Order: sequence, then structure tokens, then C-alpha cells
Amino acid sequence: MEPSSSKPVSSSSWETGIEVGDATFPRGFWAYAWEGGPRLRMALLVSDRPATVAGRFTVNAAQAAPVQLCRRLVAGGVSQAAVINAGNANALTGAQGRADAERMQQLCGQALGIEPATVAVASTGVIGVPLPMAEIEAGIHYLAERYQMGAPSEGEKAARAILTTDTRPKTGALTVSLSGGTVRIGYMAKGSGMIHPGMATMLVFLTTDAAVAPAVLDRLVGEAVDASFHALSVDGDMSTNDTVLCWANGASGVVVEQAEDVQAFGAALTRLAQVAARQIAADGEGATHLITARVRGAQTVADARQKARAIIASALVKTAVYGRDPNWGRVLAAVGASGLPWDPARASLWMNGLCLYNQGVPLPFDEAEAKARMAAFEVVFEVALGEGEAEAEAWGCDLTEGYVDINAHYRT
Amino acid sequence: MEPSSSKPVSSSSWETGIEVGDATFPRGFWAYAWEGGPRLRMALLVSDRPATVAGRFTVNAAQAAPVQLCRRLVAGGVSQAAVINAGNANALTGAQGRADAERMQQLCGQALGIEPATVAVASTGVIGVPLPMAEIEAGIHYLAERYQMGAPSEGEKAARAILTTDTRPKTGALTVSLSGGTVRIGYMAKGSGMIHPGMATMLVFLTTDAAVAPAVLDRLVGEAVDASFHALSVDGDMSTNDTVLCWANGASGVVVEQAEDVQAFGAALTRLAQVAARQIAADGEGATHLITARVRGAQTVADARQKARAIIASALVKTAVYGRDPNWGRVLAAVGASGLPWDPARASLWMNGLCLYNQGVPLPFDEAEAKARMAAFEVVFEVALGEGEAEAEAWGCDLTEGYVDINAHYRT
Repeated sequence: MEPSSSKPVSSSSWETGIEVGDATFPRGFWAYAWEGGPRLRMALLVSDRPATVAGRFTVNAAQAAPVQLCRRLVAGGVSQAAVINAGNANALTGAQGRADAERMQQLCGQALGIEPATVAVASTGVIGVPLPMAEIEAGIHYLAERYQMGAPSEGEKAARAILTTDTRPKTGALTVSLSGGTVRIGYMAKGSGMIHPGMATMLVFLTTDAAVAPAVLDRLVGEAVDASFHALSVDGDMSTNDTVLCWANGASGVVVEQAEDVQAFGAALTRLAQVAARQIAADGEGATHLITARVRGAQTVADARQKARAIIASALVKTAVYGRDPNWGRVLAAVGASGLPWDPARASLWMNGLCLYNQGVPLPFDEAEAKARMAAFEVVFEVALGEGEAEAEAWGCDLTEGYVDINAHYRT
Repeated sequence: MEPSSSKPVSSSSWETGIEVGDATFPRGFWAYAWEGGPRLRMALLVSDRPATVAGRFTVNAAQAAPVQLCRRLVAGGVSQAAVINAGNANALTGAQGRADAERMQQLCGQALGIEPATVAVASTGVIGVPLPMAEIEAGIHYLAERYQMGAPSEGEKAARAILTTDTRPKTGALTVSLSGGTVRIGYMAKGSGMIHPGMATMLVFLTTDAAVAPAVLDRLVGEAVDASFHALSVDGDMSTNDTVLCWANGASGVVVEQAEDVQAFGAALTRLAQVAARQIAADGEGATHLITARVRGAQTVADARQKARAIIASALVKTAVYGRDPNWGRVLAAVGASGLPWDPARASLWMNGLCLYNQGVPLPFDEAEAKARMAAFEVVFEVALGEGEAEAEAWGCDLTEGYVDINAHYRT
């Protein structure tokens, strides 16, 4: 019997050590959702106290107005809330767009009774259309009122409110035992198309109740992003709106300061970011397979990562996976096209554990066996370069008629 | 009534100044086709005298055996023939592949009675499978015999024999008036998928009866390739086998030497290469539209070209064109993602002549009018950067369910 390649219902079926939880799993974080607008949905994420904040953003030269705003926020290092809308990216909207993003920040800060300059703003959706500000205002007032009346937190519902073409919410959480006690990390994320190294229309909101100094948090977030969202591609397009923000509010009373604690906390943050990246890849527009590229035996991690990215970014690899075609030549051709030196004569390749190419020599293989292995939801290409000890992974998804249909007929 | 977007039957309906002709249009060139193999088709291109040769090749680190051979040939500067096969790329085939490519060269030189080292070899098709050498030998003997018996030249049939997923042969020719008389340039080409800047599974054979010194020919071919095949993308994948070769056999008796002649000849070569690039883009796998990106007002040609390439390489632009969705935000987001600095506030955008974005401000437009303009086979995005005087074009095609179908189920 052929195994089903249908998507897993949640991350927990293919990730271990990850808790069922979201951005409100750490202490002191609250989230609410507003689905009242005809053209928008909104979410509010609030910490009950000011938090240290760090972030990473799209490298697209056309940075959306909310991204420009968040860059300034992160430079300040302190944030207490985020107001997020899906349906309109507020990108390529010029001076009006910048004024609208600032007005979102002001309105939200005033409604919550906190310093407006500590409010982050994130938007995703159609490009080049002015924000419907009447809806934005209505949403902000509703969301702030819910928080102030002490309504039950809606972490899962907020994670749904920020989706666009995503088919399911993306959340996760874990706990980390440190020398001073236990801390919690959680996230909510969205992302489905326009996903590529350099980030994507991808919004990721990480929270923790650990207390972390701004410079340390910034470094750890940078490392986590490099090993996760920068190793992710759905379609090779890079969004104007990518945003990863991470708040550390200290509500656990545990300070991340000693070297071992910093390392353990950083490793957990990276691990959770990788889970989020895999969730995003697995829910790529039209996807029927998650593709993992693992490149090992490289001289440097950067070399391994660039080659792994080249594999998961290849349209020919993506369509071969969709067709369950063990067409390994496309995988190695993609490695060759990565822009870095490479010697195919020293390389070997496995597909879901089956060796297809061994130190420069194509191996005969059982086509039916190979096709059966590709029926798994996750298809792993493992390339051993034979040049060193470094390794890296990257994640993507297959390219299907579903992707074409969504993007030919949906105005993103 | 909505105009049809069906493909033009030949280049001549959308290119002016191009003759009906192929690689045998210049004097002294002959071509033959062999379609007798179950797994291969082959073509032979011969000059009746040794010719100056120049070439450009894939930058993929995994260079197919025939590419390695042609690099050595071009370094020598002299060639009299090319033997070409479609159906098997002889790529990632290791030492056996190199020996097979050399044997093709040897067999062809011996059968033609010319110096084997002057024979070029090109292959396209499936990667990682050894060449069926018995078929190769049969084909070479048939083809050489046809030439030696003085059989009528088969330029068009040869252009068909080298195709893979292409739906039609790609040929063109033109004449150039120089101070010493008229010279002819012609080509045959193939290419449909795995097409991207840095070249593609793209084989292009240019011929001319002009006499051109090796160093001059090399420079002119390099300029022509930069302005044509390096500004072309079908799917972002870069082949192991891309080859552009250009032979100048001097059979016209006209020498390209004086500065004005070199310039006129080079401009004609570039023009013809651009026609070939547009033919390849228009016949991209599954394509229903040719996409032209014209970027002007740049500070340098390189800047304009990289931004134009970013537009035609974007999966979101490609799917929007397929859906006839005037989603201009995707076009500008692609410009922003090109990796180069850019100020959207100074830019303007036209789509088939309709201005959608003017100096940083989105313009209201008639959606029905915009959609109607996108019904044309060719969709032109013109971006004015407002930064300088340089400009460049790039060509691609839309991304359709047809592309996915071909590549999920065809073993390339």
C-alpha cells in the first residue's frame, strides 16, 4: 500500500520536543484576534510589561512601511506590543503608507495606555493598495478593549487571524531549564508564498519570559534566523514585508546571563525557529511535500547552507518531488548552480536514505523502491560533499499546479 | 473581442529584420539530421573549411563532459564541425562520460576526414545516464556519409533534431552590409526549461561566413551573450550543459576588421542572439506568454540588466502574467529583491504601455483595460528608475500548470 502524502495535521506529528502552545505560552503575554473587517483581519500581541526586543527583516530594497517602523523600534530595544494585520501589506504605498503605519502605532499605544513608540506594526497581504484605515481603527479599538477588560487570551485565534494563503496556523512552544529556573519560548507565524532565503512574506513573532539583555537577544535572534528562515524557500520570491520579532519580557524572573544559559537558551530559540521554518515550508502554497536538503562534509557552514538552499530553490527539483520522480541529476545540477566551487567527483547523494550517487558515480537503483520512498510527506535529499566537517539544512516544498492556481488567480 | 494569446507560429511575426533561415544560411555551412535512435536524435553541423570559433558555457560547477570538451576546443580557436545529440546530456557521468564525449569527437572527425580536435560536441537531455554509444556511432556514420555524398543540406530538420521539450525549432538569420561586402549570420538553437541567467540547457549554434579574427570574435560573442542569453530565464534553473558556439568561416571573402565593420557586425550578432533568446523564452515549458522586462533610467547597464532579470525570474510575476492579473506590486517587489540598491520613490512602471505607478505613487487604473492588455502574447513591463541613462532588457515566460506537468512527469 502506498503511504499517504497528505499533510500532517500539526507540527507535533513530525517534530519532537515541541509543546502544544503559541506566542502566549510564556508568562505575561496575551493575544487577541479581530475578524470583523471585510478587507482585513487583525491580531494584537501584548506583554504585561515592557520587554527587550530584537528583530530581523527583509533585505528587499522596497521595504514596506511597517518594516521601516519596526527597524526603528528594534533599534530602541524596547517593545510592549505588536499590532498585526493580514489582507494588506502596506507596501509600495509611499508617504501615505508611512503615515498609516505610524498612525497604527499611535492608535494602538493610546488605546492600550502604553508608550506608542514601543508598539510594533506588521502587515501582510496585497501590495500597493492604501490601508483601509477605518477598519484598522475599528480593529485596534476592539483588540485593546479586549485586553483591558481582561478577556481570555486567544493565542490560537490570533495565529489564525494573521494568515493569508496559509492553510493552517503556525505556532509552537518549548521550555528550557536554565541555572536559575525554567523559561518558556513560544511563537506564532505566517508564511506560505513569496518565501525565499533573505526571508519572505513571513511574519514570525517569538516570545519568551526569560530576561535577556538587548545585545545578547539580538545576537541569538540573528543566529536563529540564519539557521532557520534564511534556509527556507517556497518560490524564490522575497517579500517587501518579512519580519521576525522576538520579545523577552523577564516575567519568569530567570535571567539569561551565564555562558551556559546563553548557549542553552540560544539553542532552544534556534530549534524553535527551525520548527517554525519547517511549518512554513510544509504549508507552502499548493505544497504536497516538505523538501529537506541536508548538505554535510562541507568546509564551512555557509558553504553547506548555500548549497542546501540551491537544492530547495530549484524549480526542477520541486517538480520532480511533486511527480515522485527520483531524478537525482536535478538535485546535483542545483548544487552545481549554487555559485560556489564544487567537485561532483567527491560527492554522494541519498534520497530518503537511498544512495543514488556515490563519490562521483551514479548507482543503479530500484525505480519502484525510490518512488515508494518519495511517497512520504517529507523528502530528504542528503548530499555528502567529502570536503570537510561542516553541515547545514534548508527547507522547501514541491511545486504543483496548486501553486500556479493560487498565484495566477489570487491577488497577493 | 479578447485578442488571442496563442504563440506566434514563427519568430518572423514578432521580429522585424530577421530572415527566414538557419545555421546554413551563411555560405559554406551544411547541416544534417538523424532521427533513427530509440533514445537519441542527432544533428551534424559542418563548415566546408576550418573556421574561427568562439563560445560561452554554463557557469554551473557540474559541467557536462561535452562542455569540458568544447572549452578546450574554443581555447584552440579553430573548429570545422559540431556533432550534437538530444535525449541524453552526458552530464554527471564521470570518467565514462568524458571518454564518451571524446569518442564522439574522434568518430566524427574520422568519418568526415577532418582533424578530430576541431569537432565540437554538444548534448542535451537526461542527466546521469551513460550515453548509448552504439546509437551515437550509428548516427555519426549516417550523418557524415550524408555530408560526404553531397546530400541536400537539412538546416531546418537539424534544428528539429536537437530539441527536447521545445515545441518548435528555433532558427533565424540576417545579412549585414559591411565595407567589403555582405556577410550572413544564422543560427539554430534549442532551449525550453532549465533556463536562467548564467545560461541554461540551452544549445545555440551561430554561424557566419564573415572572416573574423579569433580575439575579435570572442569579444563580440561575449557581448552578444551578455545582452541576450544571460538576460533570459524560464525557471531559475541553470543547466550543466549550456553551450553557445559561433563559427566564422570566411566563405564570403569579407573580412571584419575595420572599427565600423566590427561594430556593425557585433551589433548584428547581438541582435540575432536576442531574437534567439526571445524565441527560447517564448517557447518556455508550458508558456502561454512571453514576458519582456525593460529597465531604463539606470546608472549602469549592469544595474538595469540585473533588475530586469529579477522581474522575469519571479515566480509571482510569472503566475500573475499567466492569470492576466495586473498585479504590479509583484513586479516592483521583484525589482527590490534584485540585490541592488533601489529607491521605489523615484520609479515608474508601465505594463504594455499602461502606467500603473508613477514616481513612487500607485496610479488608479481600469482593471478591465489592464487585463485586456495582458491578453497579448507578449507582456512588457517597463520600469523607469529615474537614476540615469542606462537601460537593458530581459526575457522570460509565464509559469503555468503546463510547466509543472512537464517537469513533474518528464525525466529531463
